[in-house]
Amino acid sequence: MTLPRTPAPDWQTTRWFNTDKPLALADLRGRVVALHAFQMLCPGCVQEGIPQAQRIARLFDPAQVAVIGLHTVFEHHDVMTPEALQVFIHEFRLTFPIGVDAPGEGSPLPRTMAAYGMQGTPSLILIDAEGFVRKHSFGVEPDMRLGADIALLLAERDKGGASGHA
Amino acid sequence: MTLPRTPAPDWQTTRWFNTDKPLALADLRGRVVALHAFQMLCPGCVQEGIPQAQRIARLFDPAQVAVIGLHTVFEHHDVMTPEALQVFIHEFRLTFPIGVDAPGEGSPLPRTMAAYGMQGTPSLILIDAEGFVRKHSFGVEPDMRLGADIALLLAERDKGGASGHA
Amino acid sequence: MTLPRTPAPDWQTTRWFNTDKPLALADLRGRVVALHAFQMLCPGCVQEGIPQAQRIARLFDPAQVAVIGLHTVFEHHDVMTPEALQVFIHEFRLTFPIGVDAPGEGSPLPRTMAAYGMQGTPSLILIDAEGFVRKHSFGVEPDMRLGADIALLLAERDKGGASGHA
Amino acid sequence: MTLPRTPAPDWQTTRWFNTDKPLALADLRGRVVALHAFQMLCPGCVQEGIPQAQRIARLFDPAQVAVIGLHTVFEHHDVMTPEALQVFIHEFRLTFPIGVDAPGEGSPLPRTMAAYGMQGTPSLILIDAEGFVRKHSFGVEPDMRLGADIALLLAERDKGGASGHA
Repeated sequence: MTLPRTPAPDWQTTRWFNTDKPLALADLRGRVVALHAFQMLCPGCVQEGIPQAQRIARLFDPAQVAVIGLHTVFEHHDVMTPEALQVFIHEFRLTFPIGVDAPGEGSPLPRTMAAYGMQGTPSLILIDAEGFVRKHSFGVEPDMRLGADIALLLAERDKGGASGHA
Repeated sequence: MTLPRTPAPDWQTTRWFNTDKPLALADLRGRVVALHAFQMLCPGCVQEGIPQAQRIARLFDPAQVAVIGLHTVFEHHDVMTPEALQVFIHEFRLTFPIGVDAPGEGSPLPRTMAAYGMQGTPSLILIDAEGFVRKHSFGVEPDMRLGADIALLLAERDKGGASGHA
Repeated sequence: MTLPRTPAPDWQTTRWFNTDKPLALADLRGRVVALHAFQMLCPGCVQEGIPQAQRIARLFDPAQVAVIGLHTVFEHHDVMTPEALQVFIHEFRLTFPIGVDAPGEGSPLPRTMAAYGMQGTPSLILIDAEGFVRKHSFGVEPDMRLGADIALLLAERDKGGASGHA
Repeated sequence: MTLPRTPAPDWQTTRWFNTDKPLALADLRGRVVALHAFQMLCPGCVQEGIPQAQRIARLFDPAQVAVIGLHTVFEHHDVMTPEALQVFIHEFRLTFPIGVDAPGEGSPLPRTMAAYGMQGTPSLILIDAEGFVRKHSFGVEPDMRLGADIALLLAERDKGGASGHA
């Protein structure tokens, strides 16, 4: 299993939940990042993607793997507001940090979603400890594969990064 | 299996989806009614109750069993609005009629929820063809039991009702 | 839902487990019978059919619904012996009565399996309280449908039988 | 996540399936080995452990991860014979190599099971590319954790082994 390697765009957000202060990708350098993009009224997110993100957050040490939610609303903006999201987070007892993707200009697609070229929700993006995108999946992958992919990035990090391969 | 027998209060609603006109319980006389009370941001509803209601709607002939959703918002009223519910219904592809429970006066509990004495969401209430409540469950019951309970009420109806027992 | 109605052949068995004495279909007259035909090394039986039979046995009153297992070995006879079945029953903690279908003459199909025209395992056959086959399914059906079908036969029995329809 | 490190005893077997010739642990040096110990009539094996072993075999490249089944019969020896196992393997469509653990002397425990100190079935043992036991679990662990553990051992192997840590 080898994973591609492209620089991860910084995210653009308007609000955060479950964190004292806004998080930038640069703040997480040194940790593997599992970026879970979702919409609160997307069935595949609520029934599969979100529970999987919670399993990642429970399995891995947060000092090594940062699970970050990103609310990428690209439809029905009027009802999937940050206020509605706040209730959703409370009711579903989500504890990992969740940012609200910034609205696009002249486009229904929010900015971070567009910058990453996401095709829809749920999307899961793995970013290595040096800030490179290493996996980008649309839909839900099997837990075993995801566990393996995250662990490979952790191992790389402990060895001094992918650049150490050469 | 014998089921208790108390008159079903009529429901009080402010709006309907998936039906041409508002539905009253009296309109459904002659059919067994599976009344599924939910909130669109309740995890147990979204992950278990709603899918089960859809299975009921698919299994039984709608001319014999009417599946009715009831949006009984008793918390976070400002984000679980009828407009948000409409999006939820669209995204989750629900096709059975769904009414919005009327707000209570001086109480967070909506009126139908209070009239039926529901403890929370999801709740499932079975009403027989003569308009009597025969089952009232809070949480989700096994599919097999629910299938059996509905079928018993159907059988009763075909024989001329529970009063025919005497 | 109306179910067809043909007389149930008596079963022919060589041995029984979980019962003091051999059971004949006639012994169960007055009860609805759920006859679950399986082979102990059939994946669909072990992973789906057997657990469903156990759910039937747990949900319904045994005085009303008799769950009967039938070991219908039609292949690999040398390893799916009654001695192996006994261990299987013990390990899987099955508690309902289980009969061993009698070997066919000049055919790998055992006798009861042939008499009922079963297509393979798992098969589930519902027999009404008067001894008529009312449902015959190959493979596993949804729990809700099975619960409904059994309840309809129970209701019929309580009303004096299907003949009471006329 | 760091895993302990003890030498893996060689296994002692009497027969093999799904392989041209008997396999010794030494033959697999250079690959991560997932050793899945089971009994064909153990419910937890049939319903959970075996399907998980199949998922491992499908996910990882066999040139990197060798999934090996081990039939560790410690009870009901007379019915869980190699002939019965052969039918089980055929019916459940298992494709990874499976060895039959050699009977113990004066003990119901077979030899490899005893040498590894397994507590029961199912057990899963991960052996690194240099032949050391790195994980030993009794029962079934979540897929995500197992995927991560196997990937960590793969990463270690690609870097020249655990000894490269020092």
